[in-house]
Amino acid sequence: MSGARISSPGISKRGAIPPFYVMEVMRAAAEREAAGLEVLHMEVGQPSTGAPLGVVEAARAVLGVQTLGYTGALGIPPLRAAIARWYRDRYGVTVPEARIAVTTGSSGAFQLGFLAAFDPGDRVAMASPSYPAYRHTLTAIGVEPVELEAGPETRFQPTVAMLEKLDKPVQGLIVASPANPTGTMLSREELAALSAWCDANGVRLVSDEIYHGLTYGAVSAVTAAEVSERALVVNSFSKYFSMTGWRLGWMIVPEELVRSVECLAQNLFISAPSLSQVAAVAAFDCTEELDGHVARYARNRALLLGELPKAGFDRLAPADGAFYVYADVSAMTADSEAFCRRILAETGIAATPGIDFDPARGRRFVRFSFAGAEETIAEAARRLIAWGR
Amino acid sequence: MSGARISSPGISKRGAIPPFYVMEVMRAAAEREAAGLEVLHMEVGQPSTGAPLGVVEAARAVLGVQTLGYTGALGIPPLRAAIARWYRDRYGVTVPEARIAVTTGSSGAFQLGFLAAFDPGDRVAMASPSYPAYRHTLTAIGVEPVELEAGPETRFQPTVAMLEKLDKPVQGLIVASPANPTGTMLSREELAALSAWCDANGVRLVSDEIYHGLTYGAVSAVTAAEVSERALVVNSFSKYFSMTGWRLGWMIVPEELVRSVECLAQNLFISAPSLSQVAAVAAFDCTEELDGHVARYARNRALLLGELPKAGFDRLAPADGAFYVYADVSAMTADSEAFCRRILAETGIAATPGIDFDPARGRRFVRFSFAGAEETIAEAARRLIAWGR
Repeated sequence: MSGARISSPGISKRGAIPPFYVMEVMRAAAEREAAGLEVLHMEVGQPSTGAPLGVVEAARAVLGVQTLGYTGALGIPPLRAAIARWYRDRYGVTVPEARIAVTTGSSGAFQLGFLAAFDPGDRVAMASPSYPAYRHTLTAIGVEPVELEAGPETRFQPTVAMLEKLDKPVQGLIVASPANPTGTMLSREELAALSAWCDANGVRLVSDEIYHGLTYGAVSAVTAAEVSERALVVNSFSKYFSMTGWRLGWMIVPEELVRSVECLAQNLFISAPSLSQVAAVAAFDCTEELDGHVARYARNRALLLGELPKAGFDRLAPADGAFYVYADVSAMTADSEAFCRRILAETGIAATPGIDFDPARGRRFVRFSFAGAEETIAEAARRLIAWGR
Repeated sequence: MSGARISSPGISKRGAIPPFYVMEVMRAAAEREAAGLEVLHMEVGQPSTGAPLGVVEAARAVLGVQTLGYTGALGIPPLRAAIARWYRDRYGVTVPEARIAVTTGSSGAFQLGFLAAFDPGDRVAMASPSYPAYRHTLTAIGVEPVELEAGPETRFQPTVAMLEKLDKPVQGLIVASPANPTGTMLSREELAALSAWCDANGVRLVSDEIYHGLTYGAVSAVTAAEVSERALVVNSFSKYFSMTGWRLGWMIVPEELVRSVECLAQNLFISAPSLSQVAAVAAFDCTEELDGHVARYARNRALLLGELPKAGFDRLAPADGAFYVYADVSAMTADSEAFCRRILAETGIAATPGIDFDPARGRRFVRFSFAGAEETIAEAARRLIAWGR
């Protein structure tokens, strides 16, 4: 054989994706802590709590007792059944267990769903700002992310009008309600309208519902499973269920994609972590403990929405759900990354620059997480007010 | 927007990959068991044992104590350090911790490594027969698998001569030693020659070393980390360490791909399961228990290699390592899938048809796993001999 390619051997172009900038913030925060200085963590997108007690006990009960080998690629039947019950009890929606795939976090669900639904060269629309892994995962597998610039006028959510205005067709649409980083939600009517538009245009809807259960208004989040049998519905044990490191999520898969998702899962994952699967069956009985966390998030949210404006952060996304406040800081800076570095250095508060979520306009935004302890959030608010003066 | 595409909406072509046929065998075996009939499992590629006691105890110690949130994308520092020590103590090779990525099983390592190393349209060579997920994972991400037909003449391993004969360049080469399904190994000289050929031709070497530790000859398996700093070296806690369902593996990443693998891991996985990571640090101190499993595999292997020929299975790959015997059954059948169904129905023994591993010639081969209990293997041998008469 001759003809080695000219470019560097074995280094892909698609591997050159940007890092999560929040990781840079976390690194700087860790350095600060290593130097003996305090950090108030408002950068991390995860609960400060561990798994609920019932899950911990279920894990303890099988550790060293069960072999915990591979499971079927779509997950253990008791967990798939428990998830189906959750939809019936929580949403009043019937989802056949056969359409439920247990995944390695929502990350695994996105990979499997994107691969099963989209081919290289396809285009998938999503709001900007949104969770950066959508864009980067799609790009890694040859699918083009199409950003729908969304602002406060539409609660940072995509609309049918935006989709109608696209100059080239898309094959997919990702929605998230509550959304990361803004916390904003879609009403049932808005979600149904987006779903109907997708069906009418041969577009696969992907609904990221990992912040379901973390909502603060009178209305709960609506699942796309209620308005569509063709949507890929992604959820996770990481947020409401407070089990991030257990790497467990699920996906409701449209009938016509189940076999493809199963075969992809066999090859790309074999199965989701076994202990996590066995233990997670108990998670659905832990709502009292979990709702206690939500009550704390609600208090943190109220405090922040009341105090942040006093520190000059007065242009905030509604924060209907999730545990984030997304602040337009354009009055204070044109470089949110430098701004976050300064806040960390001068107040000890770690926050995430918007550039993770919105490459175009993120330099004017900062995301504060209120998933932490109440004392942390209260102290952070005090410091920001003092700093803002 | 107009112009929905003509093809079915949101169903990808690349998602149409074949299933693992072993899963069909497992389904048939489960049906047999559900009907109250016994099954001797020789189809599964995993230990029948759970994690070693030290790992179970380490997991118990942190469950409900640590929060177990996300970790850094490349894994927790104590585990990366323990893996580096393993290379120093076991192989006498120095591997910088910074080049060690903890992954969600070897499955996660292959995904990250393939994405970081290869672009769509690239071609990657591997022996046929080999582990089917190589082919399917590459295909899913737009990379073309190139099969190097290997037989008993080369112990079912690829050679430089095969690579030299390719009519079009490849950008990657995957080797596995010990290999699945054959168990055959590459000598240090053979591995070094393949690695040198890769370097000379701008080809990225990927070395699958997940069966290291499971070898039965005088010579241990050689790691590609010893002969190359440019190879992607993949390993796992699933086989020697007997932790399949914990979904934990690792990869030694060439310096020039570390940043890419880290960013891909952040987006595609966030991190490997936290409890698995914390507990796995203890795995390296459990070699006495684990070597006990290997001694059992060795006894099972000796028994099978002695008894199978009496049942007519007399053309067997050498089984230098791993826990498989790969049998050429062309004297008995031209359809290994139907043959395996018949064996299951008539003897209760579940085995895997070769078509998982070799689309072209697999109809003439069957894989028997000897990872099970000694009684299982002995009884299976007796039944096959009686059946063969």
